[in-house]
Amino acid sequence: MSDYYKHHVFFCLNRREDGGACCCDHGAEEMFEYAKKRAKTLGVHGKQKSRINRAGCFDRCSEGPVIVVYPEAVWYTYVDSEDIDEIIESHLINGQVVERLKI
Amino acid sequence: MSDYYKHHVFFCLNRREDGGACCCDHGAEEMFEYAKKRAKTLGVHGKQKSRINRAGCFDRCSEGPVIVVYPEAVWYTYVDSEDIDEIIESHLINGQVVERLKI
Repeated sequence: MSDYYKHHVFFCLNRREDGGACCCDHGAEEMFEYAKKRAKTLGVHGKQKSRINRAGCFDRCSEGPVIVVYPEAVWYTYVDSEDIDEIIESHLINGQVVERLKI
Repeated sequence: MSDYYKHHVFFCLNRREDGGACCCDHGAEEMFEYAKKRAKTLGVHGKQKSRINRAGCFDRCSEGPVIVVYPEAVWYTYVDSEDIDEIIESHLINGQVVERLKI
């Protein structure tokens, strides 16, 4: 079934060991945990709804921290939990892309 | 840019510690490394082409090992490197979904 998840959200949680820019320098792990918990609390996490997923490097390190939402293929950056809230409420719940956070 | 990757392939590489079924019981890590290397060798790995990506659990453990290809949202299982070759050559290069491996 192709619509197993309506929105599949991948957080880059890669940690570079070479000193280069990486999403985990920007609180990616903490924001991933926050997003997953928030989506569960709002009842939008699960089959045929949204899934917040761990992922490795997207090779867009200099633009990080980065998430991508499929199948729409919308790429976002974020600073804090308010940005995550807006992505969840606007995009995942209401289907409206958050233009200001797009990369 | 929404078509940053033409095909973004996510491998579940989650390792469950509770004894339940998990993709890593089925050689997922080895097949991920194989797929990435193979896509690079064939010159189809990179921006505006395909990206083979690490991911965490997709919550489809009983159907594992599982990969998902976005933005098409096609879910596959696989047994060995021949299956991976077929997904790369048929789907990623020629745009033809491999029906026999779909879940």
